[in-house]
Amino acid sequence: MSSSTRIITLLTDFGLRDHYVSAMKGVMLGINPELTLVDISHLVPPQDIQSGAFTLSQAYPYFPPRTIHLAVVDPGVGTSRKAIAVAAGDQFFVAPDNGLLTYVLERETGAVAYEINARELFRQPVSATFHGRDVFAPVAAWISRDTPIQRLGSVLNLPVRFAIPSLTRLQHSLLRAAILAVDQFGNLVTNLKPEDLPRPCKIVAGRREITHFRATFGEGSPGEMFVVPGSAGYLEIVVRNGSAAAELGLAPGAPIDVVVQ
Amino acid sequence: MSSSTRIITLLTDFGLRDHYVSAMKGVMLGINPELTLVDISHLVPPQDIQSGAFTLSQAYPYFPPRTIHLAVVDPGVGTSRKAIAVAAGDQFFVAPDNGLLTYVLERETGAVAYEINARELFRQPVSATFHGRDVFAPVAAWISRDTPIQRLGSVLNLPVRFAIPSLTRLQHSLLRAAILAVDQFGNLVTNLKPEDLPRPCKIVAGRREITHFRATFGEGSPGEMFVVPGSAGYLEIVVRNGSAAAELGLAPGAPIDVVVQ
Amino acid sequence: MSSSTRIITLLTDFGLRDHYVSAMKGVMLGINPELTLVDISHLVPPQDIQSGAFTLSQAYPYFPPRTIHLAVVDPGVGTSRKAIAVAAGDQFFVAPDNGLLTYVLERETGAVAYEINARELFRQPVSATFHGRDVFAPVAAWISRDTPIQRLGSVLNLPVRFAIPSLTRLQHSLLRAAILAVDQFGNLVTNLKPEDLPRPCKIVAGRREITHFRATFGEGSPGEMFVVPGSAGYLEIVVRNGSAAAELGLAPGAPIDVVVQ
Repeated sequence: MSSSTRIITLLTDFGLRDHYVSAMKGVMLGINPELTLVDISHLVPPQDIQSGAFTLSQAYPYFPPRTIHLAVVDPGVGTSRKAIAVAAGDQFFVAPDNGLLTYVLERETGAVAYEINARELFRQPVSATFHGRDVFAPVAAWISRDTPIQRLGSVLNLPVRFAIPSLTRLQHSLLRAAILAVDQFGNLVTNLKPEDLPRPCKIVAGRREITHFRATFGEGSPGEMFVVPGSAGYLEIVVRNGSAAAELGLAPGAPIDVVVQ
Repeated sequence: MSSSTRIITLLTDFGLRDHYVSAMKGVMLGINPELTLVDISHLVPPQDIQSGAFTLSQAYPYFPPRTIHLAVVDPGVGTSRKAIAVAAGDQFFVAPDNGLLTYVLERETGAVAYEINARELFRQPVSATFHGRDVFAPVAAWISRDTPIQRLGSVLNLPVRFAIPSLTRLQHSLLRAAILAVDQFGNLVTNLKPEDLPRPCKIVAGRREITHFRATFGEGSPGEMFVVPGSAGYLEIVVRNGSAAAELGLAPGAPIDVVVQ
Repeated sequence: MSSSTRIITLLTDFGLRDHYVSAMKGVMLGINPELTLVDISHLVPPQDIQSGAFTLSQAYPYFPPRTIHLAVVDPGVGTSRKAIAVAAGDQFFVAPDNGLLTYVLERETGAVAYEINARELFRQPVSATFHGRDVFAPVAAWISRDTPIQRLGSVLNLPVRFAIPSLTRLQHSLLRAAILAVDQFGNLVTNLKPEDLPRPCKIVAGRREITHFRATFGEGSPGEMFVVPGSAGYLEIVVRNGSAAAELGLAPGAPIDVVVQ
């Protein structure tokens, strides 16, 4: 790999129909034609920072060192919200300072955030409505050409984070957990890891009690609701050939209970 | 960048489910394995040449010199419509001659169109229903390998264009404008630029009068309909967290009025 | 092209919203940063092996020699189904052993399948629910770095195939054919080739008789149902500006009759 070959990933809520994503890619390739561009998702629900943050958190660990992750879910574009670049682990992140990097900042000890102020790197004029193209894309591309992240601006001590739901022991026999995310198939990703579960136990979610625990999707019967270890490391509540989110009426943030039996 | 590294963008109405787009990419990589392929959109509404033309017009200016733009929205495939390659600015365009390059031809003075007749560059046999794979993709890939565009065929003097709606002053205090495009979120892109607006004024669109003008999306209240400068350089009629297109019942081509107050 | 530059295509039913596809790409780029990654489709209907097999069959022939096709439609993930790598023609295929490669194995005489057992090439630990990321992606990437396919495991003599519907002559004047696939626009791909049709004839599909045969889509009238040679080499039943699948109520596997007149 030549020293200029670099990977930039993209995560946005811009959708796949319009020109927005490709304009960002054109800007980046104009700065560094050797880039490898990889889409994480452009179907983050519009302005849903928590959903975008979760999707990013599930993808970035699988990319190699020096990868640059460009994330734009930006309801505050054009207002006074800051733009940040973060060095975390051996990777880089470029995003609005609105919580989109919450999981990254939580996980990667030693992460350092910089407020992006180096206007000489932006496309001019900067549109008030499309910083993805005019601010974030060029900054990511310049990082890929080895512009030191320190050159972008000064250290930002407390980048914005939202609260990730944590496990709480309500009683000796009752653990309060939560839904972290819903995937496109309606599977509910919880904040429980397999080792968090006392056995025997049941999970109370919505008005349902879930008592079936499987090792794989394939072990469940069609239509059955069960719990399975997901590929993200968290337990997921799923319905084989169905949508657990629809059946339970649960959304991210909703509490669920683990009851020791 | 080695001299053979080149960017080809793709814009089609082929959708993302079937094999069509990837077959085009396979054909191009077989001719030039060093290509960087970038999707502009494959979700142009089926056979909607005006929508495809607008999306292309919003993306191509952000790509670097020598980029080749391959655009296939082609309701007339297999009929007598021509295929064209256009040198415009410092970029190239390959498309059916049906208006898809209207904005490019309008904007780029000095653009020269060539009718594509060099059958020895096509995949054989040429399918009657998929010129994207058998004609346009190989021609774009050969241009990326420095086949001179003049070799593709003779100059075509009047490539097909549709009429782009223009501004008309109906009375001293009344300017007739139009909707150019609707984006996937229901934002209405007008053909008005900020400097076209007399102040104070209101915009009459559908049966509604719009009197709020904002600098950014973020300044609007949720549910409010307002006018904002879009990233394309045109004013857009938007509803924060809603669809202006649905509320006003307007589609591309619909007239709107600017009334001086 | 340097010897390490290689193409890997991806076909899955993982959808485009979540992180799954990008996690696979990150894993592959970590093993071989010089890869060219091309999406065939991630919108295969969930767990629809036959649909995925058909889409793959329409795309792979257009890719150059040495291309590696990574296909994951895997309802049996985590169960005892095998994983296979296939050398066929001058290309490679990596997939679960569940019929997804049926068309490839049918067409490419001399194809050799290997059961994938080389656990030292997998990501560790291997998730029970995401072999795409932990088994198939790394194996494909190692093939791209010239790991001999024989090193993956031993030859598998009878990889799983489903039955591709064949033509049957029921009477002298009656040929029984079938629908192979429905594309995203509702066009019905049959297993008939143009040379299979006796003339004059009509096609009986659902409760309709189809008597119009056209050379191109453009020749049909809007709303008309007719038969046209598709780009896949098969005859297709289509409705111009409409959905033949919806009008006829037919799905893949449904029989249709060719009646000599």
